Amino acid sequence: MITKDQIVTDYKLIQDEICASLELLDGKAKFEEELWERDGGGGGRTRVIQNGNILEKGGVNFSAVHGQLPDPLKKVLKIEQDDFFATGISIVIHPNHPMVPIIHMNIRYFEMPSSFGDGKKPVRWFGGGIDLTPHYILEEDARYFHASLKSVCDKFNPDFYPRFKLWADDYFFIKHRSETRGIGGVFYDRLTANDDLSWETIFEFSKALGRSFAPVYTELVNRNRDKPFNEEQQLWQFQRRSRYAEFNLVYDAGTKFGLETNGRIESILMSLPPTAKWVYNYQPLPGSEEEKTLSLLKKGINWV
Amino acid sequence: MITKDQIVTDYKLIQDEICASLELLDGKAKFEEELWERDGGGGGRTRVIQNGNILEKGGVNFSAVHGQLPDPLKKVLKIEQDDFFATGISIVIHPNHPMVPIIHMNIRYFEMPSSFGDGKKPVRWFGGGIDLTPHYILEEDARYFHASLKSVCDKFNPDFYPRFKLWADDYFFIKHRSETRGIGGVFYDRLTANDDLSWETIFEFSKALGRSFAPVYTELVNRNRDKPFNEEQQLWQFQRRSRYAEFNLVYDAGTKFGLETNGRIESILMSLPPTAKWVYNYQPLPGSEEEKTLSLLKKGINWV
Repeated sequence: MITKDQIVTDYKLIQDEICASLELLDGKAKFEEELWERDGGGGGRTRVIQNGNILEKGGVNFSAVHGQLPDPLKKVLKIEQDDFFATGISIVIHPNHPMVPIIHMNIRYFEMPSSFGDGKKPVRWFGGGIDLTPHYILEEDARYFHASLKSVCDKFNPDFYPRFKLWADDYFFIKHRSETRGIGGVFYDRLTANDDLSWETIFEFSKALGRSFAPVYTELVNRNRDKPFNEEQQLWQFQRRSRYAEFNLVYDAGTKFGLETNGRIESILMSLPPTAKWVYNYQPLPGSEEEKTLSLLKKGINWV
Repeated sequence: MITKDQIVTDYKLIQDEICASLELLDGKAKFEEELWERDGGGGGRTRVIQNGNILEKGGVNFSAVHGQLPDPLKKVLKIEQDDFFATGISIVIHPNHPMVPIIHMNIRYFEMPSSFGDGKKPVRWFGGGIDLTPHYILEEDARYFHASLKSVCDKFNPDFYPRFKLWADDYFFIKHRSETRGIGGVFYDRLTANDDLSWETIFEFSKALGRSFAPVYTELVNRNRDKPFNEEQQLWQFQRRSRYAEFNLVYDAGTKFGLETNGRIESILMSLPPTAKWVYNYQPLPGSEEEKTLSLLKKGINWV
């Protein structure tokens, strides 16, 4: 039986590993750590990197919180217990280069401690995912990204990649613009053990996914960081970031959960971009790279 | 009995008047108009002004839409009829100058046409408001702004200003940051006639509020437009704008209504700022103007 403590210990370790890799990747900026405690119980280690050679603003946050769920959230989650424990790592990186993609990774575990005990069916699940938001979609990079995720998934279960890839397409969707946030990736929620899937496998998969983040992003950054870019491309980058902000503020479940459970606001909203621009009624030039990117922001593209 | 047609005609006229005044105020930029139709019924006149001498991005939008309400909205509005008609003017102006405030004005009318008829109690109401979001709160300007609104309100009903000022404090509140969006103003919703208040008075008040927008904002712009400012103050302006974006995307009822009724997305989101910045964990210097502004972003300040 996997315990909360074990998950917390391993997730913290993964946070350390990722921060070390990202500092190495950047070559200049260092993470600053903020330890915080939550009024209702628990706390976290927020680590933020800023103004690097390539990482303009990024957060690698660990938290482990517990307490009483507010009533509206109980309704959303369709559960009756009052108490919860949630732990996870959440990452968003905004690079300063329009050809280098924004990336997001999250692994998390949730349980209701009062559901554990003799004869009870414990309420617990894992969730997570990695997805990529290129300002400019480069098809070769998109294929590399998805192939990497598929290979992580396939080590654990052949159903994971196809199922979680579809889930990411549906989840990272900006409904009011009818466009996906980026090229997706994998996303899963409320994953629980069953006859064909053990808690150990789910937990190991969660950690493997977390550990795939640094090498995959390092490759994507290094492929693109030395490319030249101009002011118009930077403007486009800022516009794409505004869509990222729209998604996170309007739809993202993690952000909503954080805002509604009285989380640490600067940690929750570290995902928001350093500079974003909203340009009224922007229309890309026909045949441009911007137009091509927009045409690829849709569900159901098979990248592998 | 005031009809939809009458309201539409007068609101359109007010839109015209305001656009003319703002062009005069700016002295350079001109509004561009986009006529649009809504799939479910109705449409609007979106007018956007950009890159002016002082008006960096602003919209003065008129719309008159009708159709069937989606089920989730019926629940929110606590009504049973299916059909709706909604018309209004909605304005947001983002100036390019940190000492010139952001302003928002809205007047609107809503009815359920099927609730009209023999013996039925018609479902209809007016709503609206004006509120100010200074990047730097200047107390003299705040007093001028509130005194102007009070004087408009007092012409119609002595209860309006105190009631609607409180309402604005509560409405324009960024819950997750425990700060108000700006210095408030007046806000009212679902205003209906009763023994002491006729539909005519409500309608005339709505128009008077709309017509107060241009002179009040002209005064506030002209008081501040020639003041010098530096890069740090501009950065602060961009940070304040990010809070504005947070409010509109997370809380604003008009934005939600637009997104959920499949409105024209560029018209709904024209309220979002041209450039916004999210700086992690920003702390103003003790004794600075920025700190003073933050200290005044709270409910319940009596400015008159």
